[in-house]
Amino acid sequence: MKIALAQLNFHIGNIGANFEKICTAIIRAKAEGAQLAVFSELAICGYPPQDLLEFSGFISATEGTLQKIAELTDNIAVLIGAPIKNSKNAGNGLLNSAVVMHQGKILHHAPKTLLPNYDIFDERRYFEPIQQNNCITLDGKKILLSVCEDLWFDGDKKNYPSNPFEHWSNEKPDLILNIAASPFSFEHPEARKKILSKAAKLINAPVFYVNAVGAQTDLVFDGGSMVLNREGNVVSELDYFKEDFQCFDLDWVKTAKSVPLETDLVFGSSPDVHTARIHKALVLGITDYFAKMGFKKAVLGLSGGIDSAVVAALAAEALGAENVLGILLPSPFSSDHSISDALDVSRNLNISHQTIYIEEAMLAFDSILKPLWPDAPNDVTEENIQARIRGLILMAISNKKGHLLLNTTNKSEAAVGYGTLYGDMCGAIAVLGDLYKTQVYNLAHYLNRDGIKIPTNIITKAPSAELRPNQKDSDSLPDYELLDRILKLRIEHHYSKNELITEGLPESVVLRVLKLLNQSEYKRHQMPPVLRVSSKAFGSGRRFPIVAQNDF
Amino acid sequence: MKIALAQLNFHIGNIGANFEKICTAIIRAKAEGAQLAVFSELAICGYPPQDLLEFSGFISATEGTLQKIAELTDNIAVLIGAPIKNSKNAGNGLLNSAVVMHQGKILHHAPKTLLPNYDIFDERRYFEPIQQNNCITLDGKKILLSVCEDLWFDGDKKNYPSNPFEHWSNEKPDLILNIAASPFSFEHPEARKKILSKAAKLINAPVFYVNAVGAQTDLVFDGGSMVLNREGNVVSELDYFKEDFQCFDLDWVKTAKSVPLETDLVFGSSPDVHTARIHKALVLGITDYFAKMGFKKAVLGLSGGIDSAVVAALAAEALGAENVLGILLPSPFSSDHSISDALDVSRNLNISHQTIYIEEAMLAFDSILKPLWPDAPNDVTEENIQARIRGLILMAISNKKGHLLLNTTNKSEAAVGYGTLYGDMCGAIAVLGDLYKTQVYNLAHYLNRDGIKIPTNIITKAPSAELRPNQKDSDSLPDYELLDRILKLRIEHHYSKNELITEGLPESVVLRVLKLLNQSEYKRHQMPPVLRVSSKAFGSGRRFPIVAQNDF
Repeated sequence: MKIALAQLNFHIGNIGANFEKICTAIIRAKAEGAQLAVFSELAICGYPPQDLLEFSGFISATEGTLQKIAELTDNIAVLIGAPIKNSKNAGNGLLNSAVVMHQGKILHHAPKTLLPNYDIFDERRYFEPIQQNNCITLDGKKILLSVCEDLWFDGDKKNYPSNPFEHWSNEKPDLILNIAASPFSFEHPEARKKILSKAAKLINAPVFYVNAVGAQTDLVFDGGSMVLNREGNVVSELDYFKEDFQCFDLDWVKTAKSVPLETDLVFGSSPDVHTARIHKALVLGITDYFAKMGFKKAVLGLSGGIDSAVVAALAAEALGAENVLGILLPSPFSSDHSISDALDVSRNLNISHQTIYIEEAMLAFDSILKPLWPDAPNDVTEENIQARIRGLILMAISNKKGHLLLNTTNKSEAAVGYGTLYGDMCGAIAVLGDLYKTQVYNLAHYLNRDGIKIPTNIITKAPSAELRPNQKDSDSLPDYELLDRILKLRIEHHYSKNELITEGLPESVVLRVLKLLNQSEYKRHQMPPVLRVSSKAFGSGRRFPIVAQNDF
Repeated sequence: MKIALAQLNFHIGNIGANFEKICTAIIRAKAEGAQLAVFSELAICGYPPQDLLEFSGFISATEGTLQKIAELTDNIAVLIGAPIKNSKNAGNGLLNSAVVMHQGKILHHAPKTLLPNYDIFDERRYFEPIQQNNCITLDGKKILLSVCEDLWFDGDKKNYPSNPFEHWSNEKPDLILNIAASPFSFEHPEARKKILSKAAKLINAPVFYVNAVGAQTDLVFDGGSMVLNREGNVVSELDYFKEDFQCFDLDWVKTAKSVPLETDLVFGSSPDVHTARIHKALVLGITDYFAKMGFKKAVLGLSGGIDSAVVAALAAEALGAENVLGILLPSPFSSDHSISDALDVSRNLNISHQTIYIEEAMLAFDSILKPLWPDAPNDVTEENIQARIRGLILMAISNKKGHLLLNTTNKSEAAVGYGTLYGDMCGAIAVLGDLYKTQVYNLAHYLNRDGIKIPTNIITKAPSAELRPNQKDSDSLPDYELLDRILKLRIEHHYSKNELITEGLPESVVLRVLKLLNQSEYKRHQMPPVLRVSSKAFGSGRRFPIVAQNDF
């Protein structure tokens, strides 16, 4: 039995375009002699469709398209993820199913049972976890069907009345199919491989795993579909961060040797595989946001600092240098090096740039506003005005030229509210919003691996917002190494105040950081979507009430 | 048996302040001779605590406070909502429980079983729906404990293996306690009453219902706690949109007469009870946002249009006229009447105002930007610049004076993207973001019920953004009656494109509106939190991917 794995980049809701891709893959699978073509979870509509699932018109469209796909299965079977109506009059109206089609008909569908409902996942909002026997026989082979987290049972989750692996191994399937839409985070590929390997061993059958690839707003799907033998060794891997298509003979899997892991395959001898992955994820995140929104060109402010330099480099890679416009927006407080460093960025990346002095606008607002508070000293108000003048100019360029504005806020700044809402927090997508400042530095070094893209001076100089004379980030914030350590323990690992202090972190700094983190929920509520690369990004995966007190 | 119902306004995460309120109510209940004091769902921490529930430090704090409350129960029993650790090693780690305390001890807790996970609710994210016998005996009375939606079983939901009412009526309880945190929407009070009445009749026991009151960011809890006799008639109601505390004798309930419904009690002879409720909800929403964020004063732009006039009136009522500052921001495109109408608003409401001409800033940006596109005609770019200059000035006043900026975007504008991100879409909270334009007019009429607050000319003139000469909303948008009808069917009732057309709505308008609605997801993603007054508001209750195609 020959099985085609189709790892494709679907577009949420664009069912017509998704159907075209699926057709092309089925035709190719037939041409390569496959008996079965496998597509990812909810392939038909893209993942996550969110509240589109609540529209009957949307479900009708997926159903109609399933029928059209079934018509292509005269001499091949197809397994594809789709929302299927729950025929039981109880619970949510839909099932997140793996649908099997053959000889023009829908033969069977296997609903996902372990529905994730944490972090960015809301599957219990839409789907019902119906349990049924998910084995089918095709071409004389017994196949266990599963959707993504179904294989993630770890004894700690309870949608199953009992350990499903016992049941499944008793079924003695010839192979396991798992279709997924498993969003990327930089430590996730190892976890995924471990789970699939465990499943192969416990059920004693090879696993064919098809993951989605491509970005959907904030979520990046990294692909990395794979085949594991019954010993739990990976015998083949599809590409990461790209569409891929490969056929495998079931018998071949028995004798195939295990391959080196993705870390070697994709990233060669990189010393920093996490950063290398993050780099690819962010480039794909930018590419797909623009492609799926129908835009080609980007604009961003180039401050001479590290964040905008790194975003410019990623954008040039994602969109082509000719499609990126960097805008220098110096004020009287800008240092000479910030201008020369920004010009170096533009030169290194070969992107076009323009310089726009903002002093005239600053003077206009000073003249307009000074009468309201003639005696008040300058404070954060005037700093914010500068940031907002820059935001206004960048949005004007975006509007007039049809370029999307890239946001350059990093996770450390977003966490403590060190940024101006409607100023430097403007933009269509926050490219670095899930990278702590220290990770931005790592990424800058990585981008320079084959030659300088990020000017050395930008990496070595002390970071500054340059909103008043001689300002430094360190005037307002703890050292980034310390800040990021506290933030990561708090945000990713949910450390309490007391746990942070017990960890040996300075109490006064801990208290200050936690206060800033809580006080700036309102800013993050209005920030652009953040490309998610960690296990806990700002955005829909992290939900806090704005008015809450949070001093725990 | 005497039962005290304590309908209190808790603050999420502010467990110390919540504890103080609870203590005060227990002391009062004792003084009034009650044997049982009842508090709302998750009273101890405020509802909805969201991801605070994922912090062990937060759970420890609630546990410690429960112990402190137990110490007060030497001669009274207390029923209170709190998160309780799930002792079973399966599923989510918490239970959303009704905790019974008596004689210094925690006697029992009843976990919520029907966990809502739709619209704004994410209870399956945190809680496990453990089923157990939720009857206890206190003072010789058998009491059925339930949390909010537990009584909402309608045969269509499936967390219960069977119809729970059969089981419950077999238990023959003497009374039913239901503790809730049921967010307001303008048609919800009737639904709630119907459900509670049905439960009383099916189980054949009186119902004592305690709801939360107060606003938590976007959600308003309207109170309206009540007592129903076993025939399902309401025999007493607590106040709406206010804290309240009342004691009831169980025997009295048997003979008590049913009271008029809330509509009569609270709103007298108002012909438009929905608008009257919305009015109270928005005032409470503003009051509590400011109180819980620690602010006293508000600023807003007064355009001379209806939205800002209505927001100003609501803010003056919520915060006191002396705490509201209206800013007129005329441009060369502003009409005389927009200035005079705005001045009338300020005069009618007795709020202070200032007039700031924005032309100087417009000229500065013109001078800065014109060299970038010397030959380009004016377009939406220049309109957005005006809106953003106004946003910048309002934020500067907010920053310098410590006033919170109120956003005036209505639901119709937000739906079709008829507003400028970082311009008129700025603000801390969107007061009218869940009211269609036609509802804003209804509210304006209602605000004028005892004398003119909203100047008649504002209500009768054609709405305009005044961003170019002679601009009218009707140049860009369908008539608001038609637009709002389409939007409501789409947003609240999930009509598909074809269903809208079948409804007799003009196809070209339907297609245009649906396209605008989909295209402006990115703007709504960055808008302020919206005070929710309908069953489907923009915000966390409506989740759409920004990059999605949506032409169904």
